[in-house]
Amino acid sequence: MSSETVEVRGHLIDSGVLSRVLDDILEYGGDYSIDKFEVGKTPTDESYARLTLKMEQDDDIARLIMRLQTHGVNPTDPGEAMLREVEQDGVFPDDFYSTTNLETVVRLGGHWVPVENPEMDCGIVVVGERARTIAVSDIKAGDHLVCGAGGVKVVPLPAIDRSVGGFEFMNSEVSSEKPQALLVRQIAQQMRDVKSEGKKVLWVAGPAVVHTGAAPAMVALVEAGYVDVLFAGNAIATHDIEASLFGTSLGVDLKQGRGVEHGHEHHIRAINQIRRAGSIAAAVETGVLTGGVMHALVTHGKQFVLVGSVRDDGPLPDVFTDVIEGQRAMRAGLKDVGFAIMVATMLHSVATGNILPASIPLVCVDINPATVTKLADRGSAQARGIVTDIGLFLEQLALELAPAYREGSRPGEDV
Amino acid sequence: MSSETVEVRGHLIDSGVLSRVLDDILEYGGDYSIDKFEVGKTPTDESYARLTLKMEQDDDIARLIMRLQTHGVNPTDPGEAMLREVEQDGVFPDDFYSTTNLETVVRLGGHWVPVENPEMDCGIVVVGERARTIAVSDIKAGDHLVCGAGGVKVVPLPAIDRSVGGFEFMNSEVSSEKPQALLVRQIAQQMRDVKSEGKKVLWVAGPAVVHTGAAPAMVALVEAGYVDVLFAGNAIATHDIEASLFGTSLGVDLKQGRGVEHGHEHHIRAINQIRRAGSIAAAVETGVLTGGVMHALVTHGKQFVLVGSVRDDGPLPDVFTDVIEGQRAMRAGLKDVGFAIMVATMLHSVATGNILPASIPLVCVDINPATVTKLADRGSAQARGIVTDIGLFLEQLALELAPAYREGSRPGEDV
Amino acid sequence: MSSETVEVRGHLIDSGVLSRVLDDILEYGGDYSIDKFEVGKTPTDESYARLTLKMEQDDDIARLIMRLQTHGVNPTDPGEAMLREVEQDGVFPDDFYSTTNLETVVRLGGHWVPVENPEMDCGIVVVGERARTIAVSDIKAGDHLVCGAGGVKVVPLPAIDRSVGGFEFMNSEVSSEKPQALLVRQIAQQMRDVKSEGKKVLWVAGPAVVHTGAAPAMVALVEAGYVDVLFAGNAIATHDIEASLFGTSLGVDLKQGRGVEHGHEHHIRAINQIRRAGSIAAAVETGVLTGGVMHALVTHGKQFVLVGSVRDDGPLPDVFTDVIEGQRAMRAGLKDVGFAIMVATMLHSVATGNILPASIPLVCVDINPATVTKLADRGSAQARGIVTDIGLFLEQLALELAPAYREGSRPGEDV
Amino acid sequence: MSSETVEVRGHLIDSGVLSRVLDDILEYGGDYSIDKFEVGKTPTDESYARLTLKMEQDDDIARLIMRLQTHGVNPTDPGEAMLREVEQDGVFPDDFYSTTNLETVVRLGGHWVPVENPEMDCGIVVVGERARTIAVSDIKAGDHLVCGAGGVKVVPLPAIDRSVGGFEFMNSEVSSEKPQALLVRQIAQQMRDVKSEGKKVLWVAGPAVVHTGAAPAMVALVEAGYVDVLFAGNAIATHDIEASLFGTSLGVDLKQGRGVEHGHEHHIRAINQIRRAGSIAAAVETGVLTGGVMHALVTHGKQFVLVGSVRDDGPLPDVFTDVIEGQRAMRAGLKDVGFAIMVATMLHSVATGNILPASIPLVCVDINPATVTKLADRGSAQARGIVTDIGLFLEQLALELAPAYREGSRPGEDV
Repeated sequence: MSSETVEVRGHLIDSGVLSRVLDDILEYGGDYSIDKFEVGKTPTDESYARLTLKMEQDDDIARLIMRLQTHGVNPTDPGEAMLREVEQDGVFPDDFYSTTNLETVVRLGGHWVPVENPEMDCGIVVVGERARTIAVSDIKAGDHLVCGAGGVKVVPLPAIDRSVGGFEFMNSEVSSEKPQALLVRQIAQQMRDVKSEGKKVLWVAGPAVVHTGAAPAMVALVEAGYVDVLFAGNAIATHDIEASLFGTSLGVDLKQGRGVEHGHEHHIRAINQIRRAGSIAAAVETGVLTGGVMHALVTHGKQFVLVGSVRDDGPLPDVFTDVIEGQRAMRAGLKDVGFAIMVATMLHSVATGNILPASIPLVCVDINPATVTKLADRGSAQARGIVTDIGLFLEQLALELAPAYREGSRPGEDV
Repeated sequence: MSSETVEVRGHLIDSGVLSRVLDDILEYGGDYSIDKFEVGKTPTDESYARLTLKMEQDDDIARLIMRLQTHGVNPTDPGEAMLREVEQDGVFPDDFYSTTNLETVVRLGGHWVPVENPEMDCGIVVVGERARTIAVSDIKAGDHLVCGAGGVKVVPLPAIDRSVGGFEFMNSEVSSEKPQALLVRQIAQQMRDVKSEGKKVLWVAGPAVVHTGAAPAMVALVEAGYVDVLFAGNAIATHDIEASLFGTSLGVDLKQGRGVEHGHEHHIRAINQIRRAGSIAAAVETGVLTGGVMHALVTHGKQFVLVGSVRDDGPLPDVFTDVIEGQRAMRAGLKDVGFAIMVATMLHSVATGNILPASIPLVCVDINPATVTKLADRGSAQARGIVTDIGLFLEQLALELAPAYREGSRPGEDV
Repeated sequence: MSSETVEVRGHLIDSGVLSRVLDDILEYGGDYSIDKFEVGKTPTDESYARLTLKMEQDDDIARLIMRLQTHGVNPTDPGEAMLREVEQDGVFPDDFYSTTNLETVVRLGGHWVPVENPEMDCGIVVVGERARTIAVSDIKAGDHLVCGAGGVKVVPLPAIDRSVGGFEFMNSEVSSEKPQALLVRQIAQQMRDVKSEGKKVLWVAGPAVVHTGAAPAMVALVEAGYVDVLFAGNAIATHDIEASLFGTSLGVDLKQGRGVEHGHEHHIRAINQIRRAGSIAAAVETGVLTGGVMHALVTHGKQFVLVGSVRDDGPLPDVFTDVIEGQRAMRAGLKDVGFAIMVATMLHSVATGNILPASIPLVCVDINPATVTKLADRGSAQARGIVTDIGLFLEQLALELAPAYREGSRPGEDV
Repeated sequence: MSSETVEVRGHLIDSGVLSRVLDDILEYGGDYSIDKFEVGKTPTDESYARLTLKMEQDDDIARLIMRLQTHGVNPTDPGEAMLREVEQDGVFPDDFYSTTNLETVVRLGGHWVPVENPEMDCGIVVVGERARTIAVSDIKAGDHLVCGAGGVKVVPLPAIDRSVGGFEFMNSEVSSEKPQALLVRQIAQQMRDVKSEGKKVLWVAGPAVVHTGAAPAMVALVEAGYVDVLFAGNAIATHDIEASLFGTSLGVDLKQGRGVEHGHEHHIRAINQIRRAGSIAAAVETGVLTGGVMHALVTHGKQFVLVGSVRDDGPLPDVFTDVIEGQRAMRAGLKDVGFAIMVATMLHSVATGNILPASIPLVCVDINPATVTKLADRGSAQARGIVTDIGLFLEQLALELAPAYREGSRPGEDV
């Protein structure tokens, strides 16, 4: 029988944190006693709890502690971090410390060292006096990795102040029955705030942006400076380019609002033309590509990371066909990001959620409640979801943020 | 073995009509030969087909013909209608003619008499020289009802001219991947056209209109004259009234955009207050109710028919608790309707689809594709579906149709 | 400023109860201080909390207390219940006590009197020394109703013992990603337990039971004694009867597994035949109806309550067309029910959830996650949801519970 | 103005083919006249149509013909195929012939040569006297590619004989309201037929197979010989291995049927262990992995192709991280496949649909109707969809096909 004393401080009751902590202990097969509990008397007071955990095995208690750290629970006496030398490229030691996406510090040589680039499901590699997260596929034999749960502390996110009522539209619930127009204005405000702090806005977007006729709204947002980085796949870029070259997007004639069934032949021809040009940027330079979202990103010098998938046609020459290389490019693209918005994509949203620190606010917009739910389920606790129509959402967001769009002609209107 | 010669004229191939006709013959266990087929050579030419149907039993062939009439197929020699005297209140003779929702004529005494109030799944009662549809629950012993398929001709809807591209956004397909902003403008235009012809616009609406914060947009549409009749249930009226009285709607605080879980207690208190007043109109007159959609309908003298359901609390005093009486009130409300729009309700949309003539254009808007599909499946072939967010849809429709709303303050903004 | 001291005891933290209590106080615009908090040290210990509530208005604090009572919170000093005489039929006094669906007691003349028939959103009427819930539509002038929150105590449900792991498949989550075969066996076991205690099993079922070809499985469950009461609408009964009379169900040829589009004509003819017979039971007696679920219920002397809706054709003569009368019949049908299962119906499931005491375990089975979520949102906290296919679910449940079904021929197999 | 005469033979009307042909002509901006139309008189007779197409531009008419070939329409005088030498690796000539997934022949030197490996959205490369499809990413400078629509004929699929009623449950419709138990038996029969012809059964499966507790059923199907090839991603293999190593799958405790929230830490540890072993097969050999679906595939010598995606953790060492290489491996895995079944995966199902010849029957099973619809939308016209619960579906399929499973213990039962 092994035991360990842990503690947690914060809005433990009203946020439901303590409830989840106790749940997890039982689910992991452990037992507990609550040794001390100081309740916050008023809504603004913090509470404090100290618990003794008990489990059969040392290994298991270390893993339970890693689990509880996702809730901000830490050992009262974390001790010193233990480092092991990695024996084999791409393989962690068995007892590696598995990270959360929260701010984390490790105790090395008596000092608390911050872990750079918080990301969940990674290891912590220590080089000299610095520590950073590392994906299992990037670890090399000879690297020094933090093992066990000792010497690691996780700093929980500050509780959202519920009595003030700032940017908080949907917590656990995912629902389409919310005052959507209000939510659009809240997101617009948050984007303005992030930009005024000198931070970047990251978009993760799927092809429905083009299908719903929202590409002009998206272009307006790029032009107005509210799209700094785009993470996406081959599909949205191809549909956007197809729409520019042929006026169709996988068979939807956007002017008339009616669909050509399949119409895949436009699709593969659009890809072929960009392959001939060599890259999207080259196609813009040579005048092959003259409109659309990708064109706007190129002409405004914005960054995009396109990562392919097994269902891709082509793909476009800019697309990472190796997904691990694509993940690395996405990680590099997170620098200075202060806000992330995910629209109409499951695959790239989950991928981004996997690598995003918990400290970056995140909004997920989709007409399908399951996409939002799935994202939250994977551990992106900071995710906020809006179930709405992408086309109308982007139209309204552009009206809020892009004054030029407000006056200018809109799609389907005669100019 | 029984046989009958039938014919059909129109855009038989490109519309898929002939394909469905042949399908239905086989599904009903019949056989056919195509005796004559004159194909329209160009896209605008009509085609003509004459078929011989064969079935084992006379009864079955009569029922097959009724089925084919939903596609505009009629016997070449329909003969004279046969009338039977009804023996029992609320019960049709076994071989009653079951109606389509298309324009229909019956041959009585050598003359073709139009059937008033086309409605599907009804009988045709003949009184003197007039014929009209009648629901089974309204038939009385002694009434004269058309029986068998003889002497009945159905006039198919004019084919939508596909080469022109008017009001045609979604045919068989139901999809959220459409240019939604364009669709809003098309619907706005159609509403203007209907009003300029002196016809009425019928709305069928569910509670999500209130939950999504779209009640102010709906009020603007009432004030601008684009809501002549509302068919709904107890829920939307209650939530709208609750929002006016308490600022909440089943627990959604509309100003802050956050939800009170359940909060049913507001709900039943709102109902109780209107019950005390005696009716919604009385509550408006006495100053109990001062805002919201129901208030706008009352003050602008617009009609509403509220029909209850088994899940209702209360209900409000205006609600028909007997659903058959409610159906009668809805039928009466169809007079002069030239366009129907259904938003965010399955139950009342299907109910309205059941009684609506096929000649009235119909748009169904819901975030759930299943609602639209279900409506179309029940025989409302003229139904067009839009899968989108109700809140943003109504916001945009109000911006198109209600100039005052455009300038005025919007919900959630400081005035 | 008004204040009141309340207390609550139980598994306050791990169940999340206390978190919801604090949420509700703030959402109602109140303030609190936690005066005492005794935490349960181990997983099996109960906790105890005493809070002081503060609000601007007396009225509001009474309503907040009613709200908190849904979580088992009660005033420390409830005092005596206040009764008011009702002035108008069908209208409660403004400050009426709005009930939860939990076991409740009222203090009358110094004694705690249990409230009969717990049901939410009702009033409490007192007749002599007895108290019972009453719907607003049933109240009469002169009745004595409990008003304000004084003198009322709610008895919370016993916490589900999480360490034992009995019948607990889905808590807050609704998901199709669960080991479904295991869930079927758990439900079968619970039905056996309920029957062995002499209690009844209530089914609430929608038409998909017939569409999915599961009627034979349902018949087997009736025959095996696991369907005591059925709450349903016109649709399932009609489709079931149509399937027996014509071998089709709204156009699905069940033997071949292919669909006749619409085919509504069978539907209305089936209804007409039962109307001629006078009732479903009469149709069984006279040999008109010889198979299906309704036939099985009649021949085994089981109870069914069919309540109509505005979308109904016909309806069948057994259907309550007045929904308030239908609700009364459903309330009467709850006697001795020990377990409720809802399959493939939103409307009648919500209606049943509205009138069901929280003490009756409830399982909701639907392929659409939204149905389950909606049910739970309306206050049926004891609801457990399974997202699965109705056809395969009932097939498997019948294999578990009906040995005869196991050996016998199954639908689609040659006999 | 350019024109071309085309012809088509088959069940043109009842199948809806001619309707779609005429639609496509108008959607591509062309015009037509029907020069000859010989209608099949009876349900079994074929029809024949000859049309003249007219378009502004030669290029456009070539592309329209490629489009119409997806419906089996061919030029009456196709002439000789034109070959162009490819100038640049990975780029097709502008006027490349874009393939359908139907059987195709090209006329080379006066002979009709069959195109090997029918696959849509590809080019046709000619090497010596042989022709085969080639993806754009695989083309090399110097290759000879078929360009324009001349000299290419497409052989339409034989019409499904609708009067017989074999394996035909869902045509255009996707619905959960079908007799599901019957469908399971039809699929089982088709699998037996395919195996008895010496063909392979291809499975494409997503992680819900494991989450729903259906892994034991899937193992039984592998053991019984009904899983020859598996196309999947990192997720299902990881969850299956996690379930074997830790008894959990992304937080679902399969024995108890309750979920550990997230629990990602098991997930990454399972991957790490297989990475240490070097491959899944090596982990089986060394005794690290002793159960589950992947174990069964390895021990029974079955093939699996795992292709990664950007959201993957790890990944497992067997996973193709380059998606284009993964596509090549999947193409190689199609050899001798006679039947394909896709369960609970969107990404890999669409990817497989992209490369599958139309001649291979295909069933798609998912609880989400959108997945099936999306698959069909992408051009897999031979796709049949079943909307049902994966867990119960696989349980029932195993009961049909794996006698050992029938007798053996089932998950959750005491042995």
